Amino acid sequence: MSVISFARGVPAPECLPLEELADCAKAAVLNGGAPVLLYGPGGGYGPLREWIAERHGVEPSRVVVTSGSLQGFVFLAEHIVQPGTKVLVEAPTYDRPIKILKRLGAEIIPVPMDDEGLIPDAITEDASFLYTIPTFQNPSGRTLSTERRRRLIEVAQERGLFILEDDPYGLVRYEGDRLPSLFELASADGNGGDDIAYSSSFSKTVAPGVRVGYFVLPAPLAKEIEALAVSTYISPPYLTQATVHEFIRRGNFDPNLERVNGLLKARRDAMLAALEATMPEGASWSRPEGGYFIWLDLPTDTPTLAEAEAAGVTFVPGTDFFHDGSGGRSLRLAFSFVSPDEVTEGIGRLAGVLAAAPAPTL
Amino acid sequence: MSVISFARGVPAPECLPLEELADCAKAAVLNGGAPVLLYGPGGGYGPLREWIAERHGVEPSRVVVTSGSLQGFVFLAEHIVQPGTKVLVEAPTYDRPIKILKRLGAEIIPVPMDDEGLIPDAITEDASFLYTIPTFQNPSGRTLSTERRRRLIEVAQERGLFILEDDPYGLVRYEGDRLPSLFELASADGNGGDDIAYSSSFSKTVAPGVRVGYFVLPAPLAKEIEALAVSTYISPPYLTQATVHEFIRRGNFDPNLERVNGLLKARRDAMLAALEATMPEGASWSRPEGGYFIWLDLPTDTPTLAEAEAAGVTFVPGTDFFHDGSGGRSLRLAFSFVSPDEVTEGIGRLAGVLAAAPAPTL
Repeated sequence: MSVISFARGVPAPECLPLEELADCAKAAVLNGGAPVLLYGPGGGYGPLREWIAERHGVEPSRVVVTSGSLQGFVFLAEHIVQPGTKVLVEAPTYDRPIKILKRLGAEIIPVPMDDEGLIPDAITEDASFLYTIPTFQNPSGRTLSTERRRRLIEVAQERGLFILEDDPYGLVRYEGDRLPSLFELASADGNGGDDIAYSSSFSKTVAPGVRVGYFVLPAPLAKEIEALAVSTYISPPYLTQATVHEFIRRGNFDPNLERVNGLLKARRDAMLAALEATMPEGASWSRPEGGYFIWLDLPTDTPTLAEAEAAGVTFVPGTDFFHDGSGGRSLRLAFSFVSPDEVTEGIGRLAGVLAAAPAPTL
Repeated sequence: MSVISFARGVPAPECLPLEELADCAKAAVLNGGAPVLLYGPGGGYGPLREWIAERHGVEPSRVVVTSGSLQGFVFLAEHIVQPGTKVLVEAPTYDRPIKILKRLGAEIIPVPMDDEGLIPDAITEDASFLYTIPTFQNPSGRTLSTERRRRLIEVAQERGLFILEDDPYGLVRYEGDRLPSLFELASADGNGGDDIAYSSSFSKTVAPGVRVGYFVLPAPLAKEIEALAVSTYISPPYLTQATVHEFIRRGNFDPNLERVNGLLKARRDAMLAALEATMPEGASWSRPEGGYFIWLDLPTDTPTLAEAEAAGVTFVPGTDFFHDGSGGRSLRLAFSFVSPDEVTEGIGRLAGVLAAAPAPTL
């Protein structure tokens, strides 16, 4: 019995437009010529930067394209965080930023969430910045409601709080209406987006292995982050960025996204149906309209990974997504990597493990 | 009059195997399949890692392939350097590592050089590591003699000094015999290379824009640097690494290198001839058998960049390559980027600027 992985927050191989990307890579070098193969601006491949800038209504100099958006997060964190610097994060949140912030000595302050996302009025401490994934959050799959988005912008303005909005999943929506990004709301109020940074990536819309993420930053910060990029790797690898740009230029971006979203919707539907059919009383879970993840809260402690793997299923324990190790009754289920049939089978196996566990102590 | 740049230490566009790389990029995706477009090992694309490992006679797990070798230097420096950590560097040395070390708060200790490279017996202080570019050094073009290489290994062993040998230019040799690397000498003594790291890159042998550098590290250090890579960018961009691997697999590496070395030799010859014909009495310069750079020592202070640019030529002032701003009578001339005719013309312009300057105060 092979183990079914709900641990890997990556697209299934069939989501990748492999042959088209192969062709785009070749065309990117031939059309782009020597600049694609030489050093150049640390902020990224010009044509891609311009496309991103236009999409977000900013000058290209405010866009910094990095080797995946995590690399940009590291730059930003290294620029801002000193030992003791206070940083607000959603509880739970993506585990890699937690680790980076801890390595830099930040004091991590959790902001509680419910089904509508983080609770803006629960922000009662000042901090250097707030790191938030408002749409189809990793790990919870939750989306910050429009009302909360507006309130969060107000709270941030009241407190002079800088927001880093990480939005890798925003376009991975299979149903429901798109919500305005925090960046859009903050920029619309006439301050020009001086107190917000926006990051996204082509990992979920094209392919994670191309490692093309980007940041839209206030102009002075963009300059500093670009300088940090130059002093770290001189230039990013233009070949991958030019390949993504060629993919876009050919008009493949939206049709590919639609195809990928269709594949993902089937997986999410399978997982929601299987959870409904098999989970014990007292369990609850998020019902995202997009993204990769469902967050499962149990009435009991989660099974250990060893117990789950013995039953042929894996996940990421909730504790990985809290800076203080809480989350022992929760787990993250990624439905992106496995087929709908495997999703159904895997949730069944998980339910079996839960049924075999001792009853909850109430 | 367009300015002739001796500032850019990069290959001229005609050195780049553009069409072949375009084809390799496509083949790399088609042959490599989904793993090229997904996340994977932080230490680099497997087949390329294996090729590098075999070339250097180590296990693949000791190889970490990074987005250019500077990125790896940053990882290594971040791992080793705390404020006050002592680091030995050649004087002069590559300017980017100086900046990185300064940013991390290192205490930089210069090791003097002469025409045979750094002087091992001038190392009289203990330090966390020595950063050295023993072959066709940036900026000096100098090469550490074999005798000094052996002596440096002895000195390092006596002092327990860790060496980082940066060797991006070693294969860019157009004449003369290859010298053993420090890594080879240190590994041959039976200690297995535990006190040395070796880095190189495909920037000068394939193309700088692919951003593929690598480190060969002692096993425990490789593990830690790979972990740092994972926590910074999850995986490196395999597309570029797989493209380089495909280029090698097709047997293009050596023929391309031979072609590039021929182009570079013509440029170096032109520069040496022009310097001989035009430089004032008291000037001296290095005569490298490979690489990109000639180091010019003047009997007077160097002209300012503004003066040089007004005369239609640029270079990098020697002061950029010393941590303490010395080097005011030296400059780095890169002959890699411009044609032989431009080299001749540019050196003539530089000689004109020098002739126009006031006579040296002796």
